[in-house]
Amino acid sequence: MSELAETPRPPYYAVIFTSVRTEGDNGYEKMADEMVKLGFNQPGFLGAESTRDINGVGITVSYWDSIEAIENWKNHLCHKEAQKLGEDLWYKTFATRVCKVERHGLFKPSVE
Amino acid sequence: MSELAETPRPPYYAVIFTSVRTEGDNGYEKMADEMVKLGFNQPGFLGAESTRDINGVGITVSYWDSIEAIENWKNHLCHKEAQKLGEDLWYKTFATRVCKVERHGLFKPSVE
Repeated sequence: MSELAETPRPPYYAVIFTSVRTEGDNGYEKMADEMVKLGFNQPGFLGAESTRDINGVGITVSYWDSIEAIENWKNHLCHKEAQKLGEDLWYKTFATRVCKVERHGLFKPSVE
Repeated sequence: MSELAETPRPPYYAVIFTSVRTEGDNGYEKMADEMVKLGFNQPGFLGAESTRDINGVGITVSYWDSIEAIENWKNHLCHKEAQKLGEDLWYKTFATRVCKVERHGLFKPSVE
């Protein structure tokens, strides 16, 4: 995915997913790639930003046009399978926050 | 800072700061440490989560009890100085999003 998401004018919605990975891959990378592809094709998906440091601490923020779109993605059968494996195998701990984006600003001097 | 922020029950507010660093330190680490110390002591600050990958893509999410607390921190004189250096020296690009957190969930099997 590109580094910064190109989202429309607020309001829209964000899901902040903060996590700490367990040791080892255990199939994580393959599933993460699949979830990115699948997530990007969901109705109402606007974009995402994701990063993880060398200590295994990661933040992924996905942007959506409605709460309904977030709920649909949360309950998608393939995504639920990934969530289950995430709890069992891939994450020591995580937090999920659903937010309404009220304002945003972009700094991109080299492009515009 | 600890890996996951311990925030109260929603609603509360989040600032999602996504950025791409320029090459070299240029005084960034020192200022980042100072801003963490200063930010953590602002009225209305609830916690923060931050990570940056080896490609220089970083996401920092800070949590606040009100929009007013976010505005006060945005306009803090020392923080404004850091923001100016950020635009001039440290970031290729960045986005700031102000959000209302409506729901959150925590997964922490090893502790609770």
